[in-house]
Amino acid sequence: MNVVLSIIIFLSGILYAGEPAEETEFIRSIYQTCLTKDITYSNLGLLCEKFPSRLTGSKGAAGAVKWTKKLLENYNYDRVFLQEFMGPHWERGEKEQAYFIISGERNDLSVLALGRSVSTPEAGITAKVLVVNSLDEVDSLGAENISGKIVFYNEPFAQSHIHTFSGYSESVTKRSKGPSHAARYGAVAVVIRSVGTAMDDHPHTGSLSYAEDAPQIPAAALGYQSADKLYDALQKDPDLKLTLKINSHTFPDEPSHNVIGEISGSEKRDQIILIGGHLDAWDTGQGAHDDGAGVMQSIGALRVLKMLGYIPKHTMRVVLFMNEENGLLGGKKYAEEELINRENHILAIESDAGGFVPRGFSFKGADSILMHLQSYLPYFPPYTIESIISGGGGADIGPLNKSCDTPLLGLVPDSQRYFDFHHSPADVFSAVNRRELELGTASLAAMIYLVDKYGL
Amino acid sequence: MNVVLSIIIFLSGILYAGEPAEETEFIRSIYQTCLTKDITYSNLGLLCEKFPSRLTGSKGAAGAVKWTKKLLENYNYDRVFLQEFMGPHWERGEKEQAYFIISGERNDLSVLALGRSVSTPEAGITAKVLVVNSLDEVDSLGAENISGKIVFYNEPFAQSHIHTFSGYSESVTKRSKGPSHAARYGAVAVVIRSVGTAMDDHPHTGSLSYAEDAPQIPAAALGYQSADKLYDALQKDPDLKLTLKINSHTFPDEPSHNVIGEISGSEKRDQIILIGGHLDAWDTGQGAHDDGAGVMQSIGALRVLKMLGYIPKHTMRVVLFMNEENGLLGGKKYAEEELINRENHILAIESDAGGFVPRGFSFKGADSILMHLQSYLPYFPPYTIESIISGGGGADIGPLNKSCDTPLLGLVPDSQRYFDFHHSPADVFSAVNRRELELGTASLAAMIYLVDKYGL
Repeated sequence: MNVVLSIIIFLSGILYAGEPAEETEFIRSIYQTCLTKDITYSNLGLLCEKFPSRLTGSKGAAGAVKWTKKLLENYNYDRVFLQEFMGPHWERGEKEQAYFIISGERNDLSVLALGRSVSTPEAGITAKVLVVNSLDEVDSLGAENISGKIVFYNEPFAQSHIHTFSGYSESVTKRSKGPSHAARYGAVAVVIRSVGTAMDDHPHTGSLSYAEDAPQIPAAALGYQSADKLYDALQKDPDLKLTLKINSHTFPDEPSHNVIGEISGSEKRDQIILIGGHLDAWDTGQGAHDDGAGVMQSIGALRVLKMLGYIPKHTMRVVLFMNEENGLLGGKKYAEEELINRENHILAIESDAGGFVPRGFSFKGADSILMHLQSYLPYFPPYTIESIISGGGGADIGPLNKSCDTPLLGLVPDSQRYFDFHHSPADVFSAVNRRELELGTASLAAMIYLVDKYGL
Repeated sequence: MNVVLSIIIFLSGILYAGEPAEETEFIRSIYQTCLTKDITYSNLGLLCEKFPSRLTGSKGAAGAVKWTKKLLENYNYDRVFLQEFMGPHWERGEKEQAYFIISGERNDLSVLALGRSVSTPEAGITAKVLVVNSLDEVDSLGAENISGKIVFYNEPFAQSHIHTFSGYSESVTKRSKGPSHAARYGAVAVVIRSVGTAMDDHPHTGSLSYAEDAPQIPAAALGYQSADKLYDALQKDPDLKLTLKINSHTFPDEPSHNVIGEISGSEKRDQIILIGGHLDAWDTGQGAHDDGAGVMQSIGALRVLKMLGYIPKHTMRVVLFMNEENGLLGGKKYAEEELINRENHILAIESDAGGFVPRGFSFKGADSILMHLQSYLPYFPPYTIESIISGGGGADIGPLNKSCDTPLLGLVPDSQRYFDFHHSPADVFSAVNRRELELGTASLAAMIYLVDKYGL
């Protein structure tokens, strides 16, 4: 904790001492309502059940767009509309396979193609495996060791960080850049140890990014235990061959949609407070934490304010972005429209870090606004929001900050379990705790209430 | 947050500004070691697997005492010993039954006898059911409505509190006092809607407390969904009869044991810092969160300090208490021995609120010591310990405070999921997240390190 923050907390403490203000009481009622009235949880359950697979361009995504539009309409927004853009359409196709044969016995591995990966030939790719830990190691091994082989990025998730997103940032490069990096030296395919914190056997997918200067080779993620299995087998037989079959296909771009609901401000109609999450999700699991939770929390935050009779001064807009997972085209489209329509967003908030118990917000924008937001901290009940720190807001709202300098906030739930589920078959509704999810909704609602009431 | 606390945080912030001190670095290494080296998790897995059922007087409890004593011996403590006392021996016996017949069809409910409950006659008790929400309602209904019936305490867990322990305190009276209260008016048995936060069908057991002025009647907890089922059926047919069969038995008291391990202080050998949890657990589930987690975190906290080469000035003592669940005789015995041996405990810390992500500590003792402990807050990394507040330490260490005024600390993990599992078949090892558990260990280790280093 630095001195400036301490002073703020100190001053806020003085401000806050004495009888609970009207705001404190109202925020308490927000939390109580979320915890007792099912503001978010059942809606998330329905989304996960009806449209578990929501990758951009899929039937699930289109169905989720229609269904959430209807849901917003049922909540009596002043305006509900779709924002169309051309989005990618990648399909995994038939279930992938990865296996090796040792002592005449076939060993199947738990595997998922990375998003955007090209397919293998129908018979698969069978080749020797080179174990590496980093992109640097690929450089130092060079074409003589790599050419014709499957490169296996084996290094586990960086577990030593307390905030797991720091570990993710450190570990995810092998997924995003690893395939092209290996392809430059003649690798025929790439497998990675999944970028996840659990030591189970769920593979975690996620986008790779093909570089323009490298051949596009197939790439897939192995479950943690499967990665161990492959590694152990390679210790016994360094010459063993791995077979990888990926049946993915990239179709032409298709019309895709952001879903937007708006409640007009009673005093400052031209000033918008945006709250959102992304509706698309990987085609594995149900996209419950990533990011069904954020979608339903955003809808829930406005819902609870409405239930409590609060009339917003500013225009409140819920945006359910499409295509966060493999392109971010929904977020970009939204920012473009903002520029064209000369809209004024005073703040954009995103929830896209899972439906876990809230611990804080991260912020991108001017220091003066950050300090102003930090002065709200004492209004939050104990064991909810404890900090607002400089960081970022969220992927989908990032373009708004780029184009129009919009200040951004991101909900920071506790991060310990997120990467156990993220992009994997384990990201299902039953992995979401009702109370944790609803506390996130309440924290979002309390924040937009304070910003609406006091401005920025 | 009050002004005093704010000033402390402010001053601590100043103290803390600038280069990370040696202490900050050491605490960072504690957290990193716990997150990467499996200090606690596998030990908890072994305890849950080998001795899932550890109620005082059971074979499981005796086995867990032997096994944990051995474990401590393997970690090279200076002294490992058992503390014997006579403890209760209650057994559930054959699986309970609760059912009603409606339209000729038998409806079985998910049920667990409350701890200490007497058994029903072998054929069970079959009687009409009276739904009530509170002890007060029992008073107002009186013997004329209650006599000869089974009283059904139906009110759900008080979900509106953010810290679920507040909801538990509010809701648990019907479990502890409800049976005797109903018995005073002639009730023949009691069933309660389980005291838990989840809306699944796991029943949650826990001790009842028979009053001396009331007949002892059988009492059991129903799963949330089973309670709904019974309630709904009673709306349709208020005269329906519930059958309850409990096959419990109370045996004569038996020798029971606290398990104690000690590392002698290098400078202040006669001043003891105690860290502990309770080894006993209900005979359902595996006692993973309650309190296998606290037991293994306590062992782990000293283990990680040792691994990092730290030599404690004060004597460090791990105590694995027996009989927290149905008597607290282990905690009482320990405090008695402390008095007899004129031992000086400068601080006792307990972890008994589940293996969830840590958020703070609660404290019982002099304000001056609380303020001193709060000055440590800035040493804790973000998203770990955020507050130390007045409250209590833990059930097992409570008697130490009573007898010798020992200051107490209790680890406060996030409380949202605890009562989903507490005292139910759902409290199993797979419900524990590795990272969350280890962060608790690290927080305990960091705290005893700071207290050891700076005194109190």
